[in-house]
Amino acid sequence: MPIRVYLDWNATTPLRPEARAAMVAAYDLVGNPSSVHAEGREARRLLEAARAALAGAVGGLPRNVVFTSSGTEANALALSPGLKGPSGGPVARLLVSAVEHASVLAGGRFSADAVSQIRVTRSGAVDLDHLKALLGSGPPALVSIMAANNETGALQPIAEAARIAHEAGGLLHVDAIQAFGKMPFDIKEVGVDLATLSAHKIGGPKGIGALVAAEGVTGLEPVLRGGGQELGRRAGTENVAGIAGFGAAVSAAVQALAEDAERVRSLRNRLENGLRAVPGTTIFSQEAGRLPNTTLFTAPGLKAETAVIGFDLEGIAVSSGSACSSGKVQPSHVLSAMGFDPKTAQGAVRLSLGWSTQEADINRTLEAWRKLGNNLLKG
Amino acid sequence: MPIRVYLDWNATTPLRPEARAAMVAAYDLVGNPSSVHAEGREARRLLEAARAALAGAVGGLPRNVVFTSSGTEANALALSPGLKGPSGGPVARLLVSAVEHASVLAGGRFSADAVSQIRVTRSGAVDLDHLKALLGSGPPALVSIMAANNETGALQPIAEAARIAHEAGGLLHVDAIQAFGKMPFDIKEVGVDLATLSAHKIGGPKGIGALVAAEGVTGLEPVLRGGGQELGRRAGTENVAGIAGFGAAVSAAVQALAEDAERVRSLRNRLENGLRAVPGTTIFSQEAGRLPNTTLFTAPGLKAETAVIGFDLEGIAVSSGSACSSGKVQPSHVLSAMGFDPKTAQGAVRLSLGWSTQEADINRTLEAWRKLGNNLLKG
Repeated sequence: MPIRVYLDWNATTPLRPEARAAMVAAYDLVGNPSSVHAEGREARRLLEAARAALAGAVGGLPRNVVFTSSGTEANALALSPGLKGPSGGPVARLLVSAVEHASVLAGGRFSADAVSQIRVTRSGAVDLDHLKALLGSGPPALVSIMAANNETGALQPIAEAARIAHEAGGLLHVDAIQAFGKMPFDIKEVGVDLATLSAHKIGGPKGIGALVAAEGVTGLEPVLRGGGQELGRRAGTENVAGIAGFGAAVSAAVQALAEDAERVRSLRNRLENGLRAVPGTTIFSQEAGRLPNTTLFTAPGLKAETAVIGFDLEGIAVSSGSACSSGKVQPSHVLSAMGFDPKTAQGAVRLSLGWSTQEADINRTLEAWRKLGNNLLKG
Repeated sequence: MPIRVYLDWNATTPLRPEARAAMVAAYDLVGNPSSVHAEGREARRLLEAARAALAGAVGGLPRNVVFTSSGTEANALALSPGLKGPSGGPVARLLVSAVEHASVLAGGRFSADAVSQIRVTRSGAVDLDHLKALLGSGPPALVSIMAANNETGALQPIAEAARIAHEAGGLLHVDAIQAFGKMPFDIKEVGVDLATLSAHKIGGPKGIGALVAAEGVTGLEPVLRGGGQELGRRAGTENVAGIAGFGAAVSAAVQALAEDAERVRSLRNRLENGLRAVPGTTIFSQEAGRLPNTTLFTAPGLKAETAVIGFDLEGIAVSSGSACSSGKVQPSHVLSAMGFDPKTAQGAVRLSLGWSTQEADINRTLEAWRKLGNNLLKG
């Protein structure tokens, strides 16, 4: 079998060697981090080193990092009525952008009638005027806006959103899963009150996430209760090896960030130039700022489900939308929110690149596209 | 440094080589199990193989296994108002034994006033008459009783509890974390409606658990919402490597069960005979049936906190209670519920054995005890 080309990095990136090594090393640690004996203390040290790496990478403090089992769990923990911060709260309702991940749209611990959606423009950027109007229409709100969209790569105006939310006595949660490790992200600089991170989008293991709170944010209600782990904010024996892998991936990703971003952007641009050879090709969110690694595109007559299978048979892994909703036939809620009709949305294919993507991968993908296009675009 | 003796298996067991190999192999799988390309399908196959291994090990069906990030999360998922089963429900309240793990005592999604505690006897076994009385005093209840206690090793009469709960139109949840892999456990034979399992107590990785439902149990409310993973019962990208490790640990533990249990029981008995050389030594729950691997003991004048440190300095890892509550100074809620005074409870040391425990470990522990006892027992 020829080597596969993996262009689905927004779903899962290959494990970084640094993360793998950290996990394998952690397997030799027997102890439970809550135990007081030497084995327990050694496991605890590993957790705390990873916590410090995460905090340092996003401008937070280690004591404000809560490890969770996924971004989904971190989002559930973040969306907590009653949160307070130096700039606002206690929050009594939730405003989420219409292009958020399903785990944010689910609303966390807010009741359904306390959740409103913020509109986005056709480029996929949050409509800040609508945010202002919503904030003005009720009690202090928690606002949840992702730093970058998982399907289009569109960057959101989170610094402006933070200012607007704080002026209205609210707080800002940012799902930074897609942006983190692909562009600079600092919660202090942006004014973020709570940020969600995930390991497997930056070359760490699957099944580990974290919530980072700004100093002074209080009132996080645990989702999981029982033992006193994570300073009482998240019960359950910790995934020690996973956390160690997360820490190692963070350090590696941050160190490589500037170089990776430049290299990946250049490969992505080359890819998009090739895709545009088909007349009528649309690349979504091009007008918005985008992550350097993401291309969501369609062409006349393209059906994403068929295209994903066609690429797969050519040895290339691509996606028809976010991985969590692939397998379902519904069109992407992201493109719908941007005002595209269901037919367009069902024709959107996502190509996402990452740290080990090579020029040869782009060449093979474009060859496959030229080969497949003849059949796929017949309508 | 001499080789350490690890006698804290009820907190965390050393990783089985089979689990380590499965996890390292899983690191080569790039895909997200929700993705439809070859990489995604391969990750999916790994999940489903582990799911089948778990289901087979406890007499359940793969489709009724929900992977979670811990036993704590599985317990939170299990304790869900509105559950129905072939034998009872919908449940409107929760009855938990007084010696349950903190994550069960926390009550899951039941409001605090819908949770009652079932008494235990001085041997640590659930008082079935009290259970009957509680069941008779209100609407159908979910009953939650652990198969074996994590501190004392005491076995609970779960088959009788299942019968009693079902006769009253209720359901039974069993936290089988400590028992699973150390004694036979089959949900059909016992009549369990929901069972919680955890990987790191059987030589799998930390940070993975599962809830297994009996066929026909419905109404599980997800704790984590968003993507459609785990048939809509638990959102979030799966910890693929951890689940693969869990599956491998289950297979290895089940295969070795009979032999391990016999060998461990014999080592444990030898250990207890040695401990009894100190006059006035108490071994808790001896009157109840116990797991083959657990000894919770005290002796006149013993202080557990000091003993744990003393053993640790001698190279032996032991515990002063459940790992989740160690580090805290409170006496064990388990011994309190059994009717022991706080002073006795603060003197209880737990020694727990497992698959790689050797005779030499027992000898070194008894030597250390003879050496330490002189000082520790001065009072």
